[in-house]
Amino acid sequence: MSAVPYDHKQLADAAGEIIVNVRELAALGWTPATSSNFSRRLDAAHAAITVSGRDKGRLTEADIMVVDLDGRAVGSDHRPSAETLLHTQLYRRDADVGCVLHTHSHNQTVASRLFAGEGRVRLEGYELLKAFRGNATHEAAIELPVLANSQHMPTLAAQVDTLLDHGPMWGYLIDGHGLYAWGRDMAEARRHLDAFEFLIGCELDLRRLGVRG
Amino acid sequence: MSAVPYDHKQLADAAGEIIVNVRELAALGWTPATSSNFSRRLDAAHAAITVSGRDKGRLTEADIMVVDLDGRAVGSDHRPSAETLLHTQLYRRDADVGCVLHTHSHNQTVASRLFAGEGRVRLEGYELLKAFRGNATHEAAIELPVLANSQHMPTLAAQVDTLLDHGPMWGYLIDGHGLYAWGRDMAEARRHLDAFEFLIGCELDLRRLGVRG
Amino acid sequence: MSAVPYDHKQLADAAGEIIVNVRELAALGWTPATSSNFSRRLDAAHAAITVSGRDKGRLTEADIMVVDLDGRAVGSDHRPSAETLLHTQLYRRDADVGCVLHTHSHNQTVASRLFAGEGRVRLEGYELLKAFRGNATHEAAIELPVLANSQHMPTLAAQVDTLLDHGPMWGYLIDGHGLYAWGRDMAEARRHLDAFEFLIGCELDLRRLGVRG
Amino acid sequence: MSAVPYDHKQLADAAGEIIVNVRELAALGWTPATSSNFSRRLDAAHAAITVSGRDKGRLTEADIMVVDLDGRAVGSDHRPSAETLLHTQLYRRDADVGCVLHTHSHNQTVASRLFAGEGRVRLEGYELLKAFRGNATHEAAIELPVLANSQHMPTLAAQVDTLLDHGPMWGYLIDGHGLYAWGRDMAEARRHLDAFEFLIGCELDLRRLGVRG
Repeated sequence: MSAVPYDHKQLADAAGEIIVNVRELAALGWTPATSSNFSRRLDAAHAAITVSGRDKGRLTEADIMVVDLDGRAVGSDHRPSAETLLHTQLYRRDADVGCVLHTHSHNQTVASRLFAGEGRVRLEGYELLKAFRGNATHEAAIELPVLANSQHMPTLAAQVDTLLDHGPMWGYLIDGHGLYAWGRDMAEARRHLDAFEFLIGCELDLRRLGVRG
Repeated sequence: MSAVPYDHKQLADAAGEIIVNVRELAALGWTPATSSNFSRRLDAAHAAITVSGRDKGRLTEADIMVVDLDGRAVGSDHRPSAETLLHTQLYRRDADVGCVLHTHSHNQTVASRLFAGEGRVRLEGYELLKAFRGNATHEAAIELPVLANSQHMPTLAAQVDTLLDHGPMWGYLIDGHGLYAWGRDMAEARRHLDAFEFLIGCELDLRRLGVRG
Repeated sequence: MSAVPYDHKQLADAAGEIIVNVRELAALGWTPATSSNFSRRLDAAHAAITVSGRDKGRLTEADIMVVDLDGRAVGSDHRPSAETLLHTQLYRRDADVGCVLHTHSHNQTVASRLFAGEGRVRLEGYELLKAFRGNATHEAAIELPVLANSQHMPTLAAQVDTLLDHGPMWGYLIDGHGLYAWGRDMAEARRHLDAFEFLIGCELDLRRLGVRG
Repeated sequence: MSAVPYDHKQLADAAGEIIVNVRELAALGWTPATSSNFSRRLDAAHAAITVSGRDKGRLTEADIMVVDLDGRAVGSDHRPSAETLLHTQLYRRDADVGCVLHTHSHNQTVASRLFAGEGRVRLEGYELLKAFRGNATHEAAIELPVLANSQHMPTLAAQVDTLLDHGPMWGYLIDGHGLYAWGRDMAEARRHLDAFEFLIGCELDLRRLGVRG
């Protein structure tokens, strides 16, 4: 009897997963002042995403909406966040992407400003590089891109597209803004997010200790 | 049958909101050693405010009193904190102000000392600037004033008045002391407080990393 | 019918207060690796104190013993910690002292090593100086002494006695070791402890930021 | 009726202890992105160990397997982590070792990189050195070795063997990777782990403050 073009059970599961994980991220202080947004693919044409401007530490099902992969609201009157496009871009481009997490932690924001000039954070020599899908050794290196910030989403999306054309990638920073990280499901996206946060934190501290740069 | 000139339901709601939020702020360590105070407007002539010297991590309804907008106790014998005047000043001046939060976090205190000489912290280039009412882009800049500390509240209040005469403002630091932040309601005041804390923390860290100053 | 020379109710109250507060301090990471000890005066001749070597995050009544003011066990076979003497010294010397808290936080340990050469940490210009009994203004300054560490408690106690001869004092650091703080009751001792920790943390950070030293 | 060569009660006890402690360590952020592993000796020939790749903040009994002291799965089809060998090496070599904890905290990872060149972190002058079995004074010094990282466990194990030949030792770092700490039982291993983490954190901060190096 549902008039909406997605599965209710799928949405309930996705919403539950988002709520549990986002409350944990909020408790870590990675979503200050109602910032950040989070999504989960429902099917080939829809994703569940947090409604813009909600307090992430008190998230409930009412704070989650459905959008199509062009970022338009489906089955509700909620106004999707402008940044919804950066989520749906990833779902449209790669059928394997099942979850996108966008946070604003202290380390992410500081690193984005510190490395904006270089356009990337180089992560090398860490055992935790094995947390990224496809990496089996600490002898790999990963470059986390840093994009200039913009209020014009198509500008950001075009830069992300260009980066993705060059090979697999699990996240990027936006200058003064925060991190996007993703994966096949919530567990993988969360593992990538946690690994980026941890490794960025190490790189910052090595600079405070005078080892780098 | 109430002999007091404010609405009991209004006070109960305000007290509940203050208790939930202040306990969260205390858990973050922003109210060390019984410091800090918090208020919520009740009506055109009254506000609820925390009683001076109470442990903010164990706040209950008994730790909240009512004052008029000259800072005098109404309906109780509690002695209002001297700093009550810095709260009521804001309620008197602007009917839109509904909530004032004063905290003493590590970052706020350290920044107040570091920037006391310049008299302000300049916040620029952050996406989170959009958290402040009236800002729609990261391309804005906000200057958070730093006042010299004083035990004489009218001296501080006069400086705040002068600053407010120059335009909209959502907070200020007092040197060696902490932050005042406010908004139309608890959610907005808290969003402003969280955004100031986060942005101050970034600015401090960029200096530890040798990027600024 | 009690054969012990202290009041059972008094001990139960003191133990309850110690357990609640010490678990909070353990959760903050101020009692690493079973370190730290905590006491509360029972009467003119006895104090309750934590048994040496217990996990402070899991403290129960069984981890609290009674000592006389020479530091000897009363009514139990527990071996009091060697440092018990630094607690009882304060109770013996001043009938107003009701509670002694000894912690090993990161900031306390780092500051004790950084300032060991100068023999003191100077705390000046902070509103939070008003947290110390007898201070009504931020215009005061407090000097927190730093003693050389020793495994010989009478050596430490003699230095503390000399310092107390020079005037009122609410705490001291021991190099590479941690902080002792005290007050008339648990609330005041805890307020002094929290204020020292906070102010030490600010002083360390101002040095990381290049403002001091 | 058990077909497995270890005691079920022993395993249940070990699993319970691991779950409680690992969840605490996960909450501290010492096990980012499903990293880290933890074990407890069951008897002369078996140990319980966490299954590779599980989320340490949500650990349950299903995430714990049994291995023999050559690191082969016993009574289950779980694939043991490659690093299992670094746990069983310690159980094989010393009948007194009852628990091995391997974590990846920020401080451990940063220190491993900072001190990789020197091959050790020297810990000296701290009261908390008394937390290590056999140390009765802060006047001792402990050297925490830092090994080069390798995906080839026999290479790492051989280096650990050489170090153990030179005398008692309660832990080591692996460059870019994390810390191994151990003890006779969970309480002692945890005390050693907590003490290493704390002391490493102090050493790093003294360098940030310009005191060391």
